[in-house]
Order: sequence, then structure tokens, then C-alpha cells
Amino acid sequence: MTTVLDELLAANQAFYAAFAARDIAALDDLWSREHEVAVLHPGWPALFGRAAVMESWRGIVEGAQPPEIACGDARAFAQRDAGFVICIEHLGGGSLIATNVFAREQRAWKLVHHQAGPAASPTLETDTASLH
Amino acid sequence: MTTVLDELLAANQAFYAAFAARDIAALDDLWSREHEVAVLHPGWPALFGRAAVMESWRGIVEGAQPPEIACGDARAFAQRDAGFVICIEHLGGGSLIATNVFAREQRAWKLVHHQAGPAASPTLETDTASLH
Repeated sequence: MTTVLDELLAANQAFYAAFAARDIAALDDLWSREHEVAVLHPGWPALFGRAAVMESWRGIVEGAQPPEIACGDARAFAQRDAGFVICIEHLGGGSLIATNVFAREQRAWKLVHHQAGPAASPTLETDTASLH
Repeated sequence: MTTVLDELLAANQAFYAAFAARDIAALDDLWSREHEVAVLHPGWPALFGRAAVMESWRGIVEGAQPPEIACGDARAFAQRDAGFVICIEHLGGGSLIATNVFAREQRAWKLVHHQAGPAASPTLETDTASLH
């Protein structure tokens, strides 16, 4: 049976697949149109609003040096019609740790926020058993 | 009239007030007991689960050098019974940019996640007018 956590992990994986494929149309579809959105790219000023957020993704994936990216160690957290996924972003030159926040719209999970920052290590610590 | 965004900003302010006051009981009350929680402190491994999260706050506020902290430029985003606040954390030696994710429990907003990372600048960029 597919759980809410599975759905969130699938939405998160779709986000990184679109990112890695530099598929701006898929990225556009994955970001919410019902809610205000935001992004905190590492080292950038905060970006608020769909226009600024999508422009940033367009610049990153269509840039001269688009990053190679893969997502690992993803872990999902759900709160009714909202949820977030924490994962390690493996980039060519190192790794970041990211939070991706999702809201349910009709039957799909859509991104409403992304923050990535320096990762201490690719190993995640926990005090609980795996949630799924 | 108090809006949902006002409520989220008040919950966020309560979090930083408790942090600045090193009030571990208040911090404990502000973090969710209904949902799984997480924290990404800058430079730390990811922390998952209430025990690990609260232990980290206890260590920070009761440590030998607890940080002076104040929150600025807070901006709230709501999605039904969930929401998040982005703000600049002004610390003694610099600033961080943070995401605080909240879920509604009964009538209160409770923290379910916190990520802080390097802030590019204390000035936030936007493509939309203020939301409230």
C-alpha cells in the first residue's frame, strides 16, 4: 500500500529527476500554484513568489554550468495535507542538505518551499527507527 | 483581525523568544508532540525525532556559550493546517537564514522542523508585495 510518506518521497524524487534532467516544464509543474512559494538557495538572498522561484530554477538548469545533482538519504515527514522531505543533495563538488516542503493540491503533492545548505556529513543521525 | 499568517509569525516569535531566554520548557512546549520532528542545524548532521531535536536545543541554550539570537525579516507562508516562516537569525557573530515549519495542533501552531544555513545578506528579495 502506498503511504503518504511514500507519496512525499515520490514527489521529492520527481523534483530531483526534473532538476537532473534540466526539465523546466516538469519543475514548473511540480511547484505549487495554489500557495505562495519560497526558495533559499545556499548563498543567495531569499526568493519569494512563484516568478522569482521559477526564474531561479530556470537560471540554474539552463545556466552555463548546470549542476549534476542526485538526491540521497531522503526521509519524509507528514502532517495531514502538508509534509516535508529532508535529503542529501549530491553535487559534483560536494553535498548539501535540503528541506523540501510540500502541500497537497487535489491529489498531488506540490512544492511550496526549498532550502539547501551545507551538509555536515553524508550520514544522517536519528533517534528513531526508519519511518517507512 | 488576526490572520493565519499573524498566528504563524507569533509562533515563530515565541520560538526565538524562548531561544533567547534559554527557556527549555518553553521550547519543549513549542515543538510538536503529534508529528515527527526534525532539525538541520548548520554544520550538524540531520537530527530526527523529538528526543534528538530537544536534546540539541538543550545543548545549545544550556551550553557554555549559548548564542545571542534575534529574529528579523520574518515572513510567513500558510497552507491550510500547515505553514512555515522564513527569517534572518541575527547572532553575535553574523547571521543565518532559517526555515521554521509549523503544523496546527488543536488551536496552536507547533514546530515540526527547523533548518538554518548561511545567509547571503540580511536583505530579503521578493517579487510580490507583502502578504499581510
